[in-house]
Amino acid sequence: MSMRKLKVFIAMSLDGYLAAPGDDLSFLEQLPPTGEDHGYQEFMHDIDTVVMGRRTYSKLLSMEVTVPHEGCKHFIFTRDCSLQSEDTSVQYVVAAPVEWMKQEKAREGKSIYCDGGASLLRAFWEADLVDEWIVSVVPVILGNGIRLFEQAQGEFNPIWLKPQSIKQYKSGLMQLHYSR
Amino acid sequence: MSMRKLKVFIAMSLDGYLAAPGDDLSFLEQLPPTGEDHGYQEFMHDIDTVVMGRRTYSKLLSMEVTVPHEGCKHFIFTRDCSLQSEDTSVQYVVAAPVEWMKQEKAREGKSIYCDGGASLLRAFWEADLVDEWIVSVVPVILGNGIRLFEQAQGEFNPIWLKPQSIKQYKSGLMQLHYSR
Repeated sequence: MSMRKLKVFIAMSLDGYLAAPGDDLSFLEQLPPTGEDHGYQEFMHDIDTVVMGRRTYSKLLSMEVTVPHEGCKHFIFTRDCSLQSEDTSVQYVVAAPVEWMKQEKAREGKSIYCDGGASLLRAFWEADLVDEWIVSVVPVILGNGIRLFEQAQGEFNPIWLKPQSIKQYKSGLMQLHYSR
Repeated sequence: MSMRKLKVFIAMSLDGYLAAPGDDLSFLEQLPPTGEDHGYQEFMHDIDTVVMGRRTYSKLLSMEVTVPHEGCKHFIFTRDCSLQSEDTSVQYVVAAPVEWMKQEKAREGKSIYCDGGASLLRAFWEADLVDEWIVSVVPVILGNGIRLFEQAQGEFNPIWLKPQSIKQYKSGLMQLHYSR
């Protein structure tokens, strides 16, 4: 049985920030409205499991973004053992992300989508667990904020990726697609 | 008279580093040799002036990269007043980069190329002096090193760019082209 894939589908500014200071995602709303979904629906076809950090989850909820995704299981990583979800498709997880992900990838299912934040992502890419990257570059220099890529914490050997495709959207997004 | 343009033509890893720790640029040499120049010659056609920081200049000299560029004037920014170049096309500059650049842009000539490093670039983009960005994304996660984009130092209003084109090279580089 082949392992399930862990995929990242995320936007960043040209200078590498996924959010402006204060978890501010308003720059994403300043893209011109072109009706494009930037490949999101197609991407989600292959996904049945979504993982994210607790802070990202709270932020998305506050923005009334579509969370949870219909038909997907959601696992929210937190260090707070007391959190309980009332949504049956959302489960809080206090386990170590890397070990948990290795087990999850070995289960049956479609691909797994990590929607951030940067710390959870760092844990996964540092352990070389990310199989696919779809990074949409927003044509803006933010100057400050939360970097998509935190520094590696331990000894780290560079990870080379296989370029798949690039796509320029009318909205101004330039989307880079890589596989491991 | 229209002002001269300041252009940046630079490579970074997917995680935003222009060099690995220790000013190490060896990841650039690990791209497969495809004979492509990634648009460099075409870019240089429009350039008659090159500016860079002293540390970048020393690094390039040590790598025996083509510096100085034939037919171009070179200005190397440094805080060390004692430096003198024996090469007549290379001049050390101790002036404040932003004021100097504003004056240089007002002179007659072709475009100006800033070849780094990150601090000199930051001074220029933070003052909104960069007119064109050609950023080549190398398909690697380095994990650590020198970020192409330092944090803005002062109050900073996001700078939106005009997407021009994207190009995928056989070498694996994905090149993003923006103008101001």
